[in-house]
Amino acid sequence: MPEMFKVLPPTDALKVLFDQLPADVRVETVSTADALDRVLAGNLVARSSLPAFPRSTMDGYAVRAADTFGATESLPAYLTVIGEVSMGCPSPLMVAPAQAAVVYTGGMIPPGADAVVMVERTQKLDSSTIEVLRAVAPGENVINVGEDVKEGESLFDAGHLLRPQDLGGLMALGITQLSVAARPRVAIVSTGDEVISPERTPGPGQIRDVNTYTIAGLVARAGGIPVPQGIFGDNYEILFSAARTALENADALVISAGSSVSTRDLTADVVNNLGKPGVLVHGVALRPGKPTILGACNGKPVIGLPGNPVSAMVVAGLFLTPILGRMQGIVTPPVRRRVTATLTHNISSAPGREDHVQVRLAERDGQFWAEPVFGKSNLIYTLVKSDGIVRVPLNASGLYRGEPVEVELF
Amino acid sequence: MPEMFKVLPPTDALKVLFDQLPADVRVETVSTADALDRVLAGNLVARSSLPAFPRSTMDGYAVRAADTFGATESLPAYLTVIGEVSMGCPSPLMVAPAQAAVVYTGGMIPPGADAVVMVERTQKLDSSTIEVLRAVAPGENVINVGEDVKEGESLFDAGHLLRPQDLGGLMALGITQLSVAARPRVAIVSTGDEVISPERTPGPGQIRDVNTYTIAGLVARAGGIPVPQGIFGDNYEILFSAARTALENADALVISAGSSVSTRDLTADVVNNLGKPGVLVHGVALRPGKPTILGACNGKPVIGLPGNPVSAMVVAGLFLTPILGRMQGIVTPPVRRRVTATLTHNISSAPGREDHVQVRLAERDGQFWAEPVFGKSNLIYTLVKSDGIVRVPLNASGLYRGEPVEVELF
Repeated sequence: MPEMFKVLPPTDALKVLFDQLPADVRVETVSTADALDRVLAGNLVARSSLPAFPRSTMDGYAVRAADTFGATESLPAYLTVIGEVSMGCPSPLMVAPAQAAVVYTGGMIPPGADAVVMVERTQKLDSSTIEVLRAVAPGENVINVGEDVKEGESLFDAGHLLRPQDLGGLMALGITQLSVAARPRVAIVSTGDEVISPERTPGPGQIRDVNTYTIAGLVARAGGIPVPQGIFGDNYEILFSAARTALENADALVISAGSSVSTRDLTADVVNNLGKPGVLVHGVALRPGKPTILGACNGKPVIGLPGNPVSAMVVAGLFLTPILGRMQGIVTPPVRRRVTATLTHNISSAPGREDHVQVRLAERDGQFWAEPVFGKSNLIYTLVKSDGIVRVPLNASGLYRGEPVEVELF
Repeated sequence: MPEMFKVLPPTDALKVLFDQLPADVRVETVSTADALDRVLAGNLVARSSLPAFPRSTMDGYAVRAADTFGATESLPAYLTVIGEVSMGCPSPLMVAPAQAAVVYTGGMIPPGADAVVMVERTQKLDSSTIEVLRAVAPGENVINVGEDVKEGESLFDAGHLLRPQDLGGLMALGITQLSVAARPRVAIVSTGDEVISPERTPGPGQIRDVNTYTIAGLVARAGGIPVPQGIFGDNYEILFSAARTALENADALVISAGSSVSTRDLTADVVNNLGKPGVLVHGVALRPGKPTILGACNGKPVIGLPGNPVSAMVVAGLFLTPILGRMQGIVTPPVRRRVTATLTHNISSAPGREDHVQVRLAERDGQFWAEPVFGKSNLIYTLVKSDGIVRVPLNASGLYRGEPVEVELF
């Protein structure tokens, strides 16, 4: 491995990469109905007020509040009912002094009225007269024009990740199309003379491809579109040609390389020749995942992953989410799913290296316990049997049994 | 509202519904590559061992460990190198006493050898002789057959929600097709004479449909397929016909009803006539969301939501996830995204009712603060401006400023 590249802490490594990536975001227009989990590409301002008319929050009578002042059960106010406000229609009614109109929840307050008396606070005397048993203040049980959103109000800033309620809020204002960041297409190249497609039956010395599928899952979770390219042999010409084609048709490239020193160097050579500036980081202060390669080739990120399934997934999990988040212009990344748990065993580490240790969670006595799942990083089932990861910080020499730890759930 | 139905706490209401739903899960076969976030329909057992051959975890020399016993830098062991193990090919090599074979990380340990000496612990004397500078134990730097998974070992139980590493683990064993729970199709019927499609410009008294889109988003997040049916007027015949058609073509039905007493009764009548047993719960001890209807019609769940967007979303968020989880046979629901925060204001509640209060999160001094977003439940932007929900438990009369609270993030 060329030693000209320093082994960087993960956050520094990411910064080095980000400095070489363009800040602009590829934009596309989608229907708001299809925009869940997409990232807004521009700021949005309300073009109209919501609601556009005063609405009742109760079933009752639209009245002039002043007509009810002083009303009590023993001394009610008497009002003449002039009709009923139909839902969804312009109301021909006009509420004059000492008058009331039947109105339902969500219905329009007719002109003249400024409050609603709940039906439970009234008594019907005859077909056109009610007693109001309690006073209402002006505006009571009414949503005023613009109380939800005012025309000209800022709704969302660019970089906002859209949630179910956001789609509803946009639809309420008639915003049915949105400019959002395109989902980054991430090409996945798997390499290794010993690696075969999972459909095939391995011969002696052969293993089935694992990393294409774990990485594709992580890409999808991070908002990207995985574009698996297949499996390629450990040969510079073959790998370079595959990587070049893949990157031409994608926004980013992940190469899951072999784990031996020679194949790691192969990946670095390929990344250096794919575009400028090439390899930026070759080695990260991380376990597992030290031999990670981060590069930028003509503005597109390229990640070279260690071939071991555990290392590959830890590295992809650590770097893909922020890289794809940046490519989509996400401003505030969503909080990850995590729980606080008590560690059941000591974890040793080395200062100067961030350790990511898989743990299994158990819930006992209303409390989470995190049990480290130790295992060689070649064993995919150490990840399958785990619920999440505990990070041992860069400068810690380990974590102790009984300590509270944050477990990031897979 | 008919008072024959008791207002139940949310968990009891759900239990009443679950008791009337079938326990079986609709199953389909999917490609493992497409099975992210799907739920396994059956138990899976390993049909073969992983790895199927002993593999090296290092670049180095496959040796007989006994040949290295006692080796040190000053008194090395001398071994004859008989060749190199090619990746992915059956090795013709056979390691006899005092012999070694070059092997790379992930490569097959040739017959005769039982350990690997790291290349860094050796010195090359000539083209066919190495010095071994440190002893290795049998099995050192080797992954044995079945060390990842043993043939016959249980891999996953039915009801497991598939994560990226699970797909990789299945592919490693050649399991490329899976029986999973079908994603439940959830029909969404929106009602209200005042409600129009978001594409249209509202006239006086009209509002655009919000609930179809917030609910569709929640359905998708819970693993279901939203099937919006459109908007229907507040008329029994129209609504019943729409609901019947919708439920025939779906696995579950959500009716976002009007908020007035009359339209709520309309929904209850429709649910009662859609199939047996009909309405099970009419009213939940929940704010917002008290007028919720839970029903079962011929084995399919039907939810009647309050029409107010905030109530509708709180109720859908609370009930849809467990209902769709059950329909998919999920055994352990994933931990929700949540953070612990300090409450900035008092929240008052009433014992006997579970309050769900929207809060905005702020991060100050490395700590989260939860500020309640108070607002009438007709205002969709109270949800848009919120980051999550704080639950005030059934028997609490409120929460106090300064208290630590769990915020469930949207």
